Amino acid sequence: MLKGTSASAGIGIGKAVIVEETELIISKNLVEDVEAEKVRFQSALKLAVEQTETLAKDLATRVGEKEAEILNGHILLLSDPMLVGEIETTISGENVVSEYAVEAVCNTYADMFASMGDELMQQRATDMRDIKTRIQKILLGVSSVDIASLPMGSIIVAKDLTPSMTAGINPANVTGIVTELGGKTSHSAILARALEIPAVVALVGFIDKVTEGEDLVIDGSDGTVFINPEESVKAEYAAKREIFLKEKKELEQYIGKPTITKDGVTVELVANIGKPEDVEKVLQYDGEGVGLFRTEFLFMDRASMPTEEEQFEAYKKVASTLNGKPVIIRTLDIGGDKEIPYMGLSKDENPFLGYRAIRFCLDRKDDVYKPQLRALLRASAFGNIRIMVPMVTCLEEIREAKALVEEMKKELDEKGIAYKKDIEIGIMVETAAASLMADAFAKEVDFFSIGTNDLTQYTMSVDRGNDKVSYLYSPLNPAVLRSIRHVIECGRKEGIMVGMCGEAASDPSMIPLLLAFGLNEFSMSASAILNARKLITSYSTKELQAMADQAMSFTTVKEIEDFMKDFISHS
Amino acid sequence: MLKGTSASAGIGIGKAVIVEETELIISKNLVEDVEAEKVRFQSALKLAVEQTETLAKDLATRVGEKEAEILNGHILLLSDPMLVGEIETTISGENVVSEYAVEAVCNTYADMFASMGDELMQQRATDMRDIKTRIQKILLGVSSVDIASLPMGSIIVAKDLTPSMTAGINPANVTGIVTELGGKTSHSAILARALEIPAVVALVGFIDKVTEGEDLVIDGSDGTVFINPEESVKAEYAAKREIFLKEKKELEQYIGKPTITKDGVTVELVANIGKPEDVEKVLQYDGEGVGLFRTEFLFMDRASMPTEEEQFEAYKKVASTLNGKPVIIRTLDIGGDKEIPYMGLSKDENPFLGYRAIRFCLDRKDDVYKPQLRALLRASAFGNIRIMVPMVTCLEEIREAKALVEEMKKELDEKGIAYKKDIEIGIMVETAAASLMADAFAKEVDFFSIGTNDLTQYTMSVDRGNDKVSYLYSPLNPAVLRSIRHVIECGRKEGIMVGMCGEAASDPSMIPLLLAFGLNEFSMSASAILNARKLITSYSTKELQAMADQAMSFTTVKEIEDFMKDFISHS
Repeated sequence: MLKGTSASAGIGIGKAVIVEETELIISKNLVEDVEAEKVRFQSALKLAVEQTETLAKDLATRVGEKEAEILNGHILLLSDPMLVGEIETTISGENVVSEYAVEAVCNTYADMFASMGDELMQQRATDMRDIKTRIQKILLGVSSVDIASLPMGSIIVAKDLTPSMTAGINPANVTGIVTELGGKTSHSAILARALEIPAVVALVGFIDKVTEGEDLVIDGSDGTVFINPEESVKAEYAAKREIFLKEKKELEQYIGKPTITKDGVTVELVANIGKPEDVEKVLQYDGEGVGLFRTEFLFMDRASMPTEEEQFEAYKKVASTLNGKPVIIRTLDIGGDKEIPYMGLSKDENPFLGYRAIRFCLDRKDDVYKPQLRALLRASAFGNIRIMVPMVTCLEEIREAKALVEEMKKELDEKGIAYKKDIEIGIMVETAAASLMADAFAKEVDFFSIGTNDLTQYTMSVDRGNDKVSYLYSPLNPAVLRSIRHVIECGRKEGIMVGMCGEAASDPSMIPLLLAFGLNEFSMSASAILNARKLITSYSTKELQAMADQAMSFTTVKEIEDFMKDFISHS
Repeated sequence: MLKGTSASAGIGIGKAVIVEETELIISKNLVEDVEAEKVRFQSALKLAVEQTETLAKDLATRVGEKEAEILNGHILLLSDPMLVGEIETTISGENVVSEYAVEAVCNTYADMFASMGDELMQQRATDMRDIKTRIQKILLGVSSVDIASLPMGSIIVAKDLTPSMTAGINPANVTGIVTELGGKTSHSAILARALEIPAVVALVGFIDKVTEGEDLVIDGSDGTVFINPEESVKAEYAAKREIFLKEKKELEQYIGKPTITKDGVTVELVANIGKPEDVEKVLQYDGEGVGLFRTEFLFMDRASMPTEEEQFEAYKKVASTLNGKPVIIRTLDIGGDKEIPYMGLSKDENPFLGYRAIRFCLDRKDDVYKPQLRALLRASAFGNIRIMVPMVTCLEEIREAKALVEEMKKELDEKGIAYKKDIEIGIMVETAAASLMADAFAKEVDFFSIGTNDLTQYTMSVDRGNDKVSYLYSPLNPAVLRSIRHVIECGRKEGIMVGMCGEAASDPSMIPLLLAFGLNEFSMSASAILNARKLITSYSTKELQAMADQAMSFTTVKEIEDFMKDFISHS
């Protein structure tokens, strides 16, 4: 039994298919006719773009637009004049064959990206290596592994799934995926979840341990992998799979049901989204609205700032698709850790404690914040939009943001442009300062949304992206729970809505506590909604009070985790 | 009137002496006899080392061992085999004169250090340029400005004071210092404070504005500088100087007095120190002990970890010099932002939220933490040592640290080595988590020391070293004050001592609030002690309660600052 990182829930039972990229032999061969070699490279490049376009279209149809974006990113890379120019310069400057020039230039970029450390850059390194291999295969006439035609019941085993490989996966044939590299948020993991194929990633050295055709059993929910398991294990996991699938099926009965506790407390069950297209999935899983729409996507992976018009269209699309259901749109939350070259943000020494979110926006009112607020107001005429301000630490910030909204309203009034007059403005409660001052904030805003990811991070002074200290990162830490309970109490006292848009809102250990504290709104990834509705409707908030009091009497995260585990297993 | 950064308090009135380094002309001249050139370089190097040693000895006698350390650092640099080797390789590889080789190699290092961004590295860049110039002057036969023989009433004006320049300053002749570069914590600023010479730094472009011999008036307390001021201004500042000196003199009456409020509440008034030598100054200013002894100095600027024996000697020296007065020694507080190559710490993405302090120490028990705890215990036989654990966020950490202390005690018992059996163990309260859980911590530790610098930083989610957001950094922020008040209340309730070792403990706006909250111990830089005693003894804690309640009713930092300013001006 081996243990990797859980990347996509579910049980996979099948035969190992080791998908290894053919080792390409790239030699530094010299060419006589440099111009002819450049033509050879250009034809290969053209073909690589065409192949990728086909793959992207196929993936968009079979899985979704969002999933195809990785490949669209590859097309952009393949068309990048700097990259292409450098490869051509290498060909002519060193008189070398195209495959060597591609190797040298792409590796330089990939290494540079990889050395930058964060996950986004790691992904760009993977992307760069992926397109490198694609061009080289064309140049060398090597054909790719045909993943699309794997036999039924295959479990794909690979070092890492490149986006081009995953694009060919057919869920009818592939019952599981195991990779040596990648993380919970790698593209492979995201795709596996979208395709609903069980997946375990980050299982170091796995390829050497398994032989093609061997029996595998994987549990994507906890990262377990068995090689050639005994029949009893197989039977056990086959039963588990039945239960998993049955439970998944059963959750469908919660579609269309109200989210109301046994003692009649109705809460809002909504979703976090990152792009307008995500709304489809929210509706599919019967989300009652959107509790967090991150607007960063509009600003990333592009060469210039989106215009007010572009933003308006995106916000309007979400608002109208939701057709009256509420959508909380968070204003721009970027900082020195995000790569947005045109914003002129320099890398902070401690980006999470730096120039970001509302701090940045209030410093860049004219070119950044006012256009966004205007776009939001204009879009509010087309649906139930609420505005949320992130990373607030003091009252002055929200007062200034509200004053700006009023100023923008006046501008629109003068031009006779429609907007939601009584648009609600709230804050993310995600800093220790905002929690400590929650009573004062509650008097000046229309709603709170607790951002548990950042609140945990700032309360525990821990960067959850840092492996060496992430053991301290848990919303079940008593300090974090006290902060959450306090914020909810302050909001309830002033009669404003208090929601939660961090991952904790869908955590089965957190839900009973949050219900007991009096949380009004639970916002989570769309696919978690039905299970949360099942849980919420199974509880009575009154009956949860004694349990919550007992949980809050503990002073270590271990005691609370154990207590909640025990509570859940008995309820 | 110009405004720079205040670096050393006091008023300086005198005539400008512009101290500019002679511009050295370094040409890339070629040499025939490379070996002879190497000999020429070696002789100059030897002379540079000797000159620096003389300067260092002189400075140690006139000012102090600590101040001479910068120059001792230069001697180490001048003897660095890598640096010297690279210069020689440049001479022989490029057949160039020594002065050019020195220029090329030292500039490369200086630029590299300068590009690393933090203050420590900036200082190393300055040091590198300083030794470069010293060797080149010897090679070219250029003599240095003789700062030691400046006329009485000189105000030194310079781009930046190199350590070699400052070493020659005589406070009898020099009444002020103005530099274009440097910061509050640059070596020049530190030395100016040690010599008690008023100083203003970071006054960009000043040299172009002033002429040799012009009248200058500088206020080192607020960074003001006047060029050729009117007589009325001169008179005004002469009067201010009298008041400053009178107040400084008057503060001496507080030497030997108890630190007790008008209504009979005694508090401990102690000092923060960074090196054993600093204890002299603590005693000079009648500190009642040491509230924070940072142990990082023992680990920095060296090639390997200090042995348990070295640590023992340093801790013992502090404890015995204090002769029974208490000293709180903080265990190692380092992380990815500090340059300690032999520790194998990699640079974290967010060092302040990363692998540091107790997190690091508990991960490196055998080679780092146990030797330090053993050294502390052994030294505790020689004085009143208390152990303080930094950056605590959860009970598990302090329980583990306490268990380690018990384990070390047993080891010492077995060997029959003496230590303070009832040694007190406390925590720095500097994270939001520790503040939120202060009631639980108070039951398990012997004392709290509130680290306001970090507590403010973590509460406000702001890196105070980041200019773009440092406006949010203030301990008078209501969120921070609430946290401080809460921690003091929790400590008082369990009857443990609650101190404060951040800069706020000496802030005249904070002292009345801290007295009202019930703080037991105030720890600050030694030179601030007498003024703090004057303030503390002028208040009655009972009379402060109503004021504190009113201050805490405000919800913005501006309101609190204004209120405290008003309160102070009327008290």
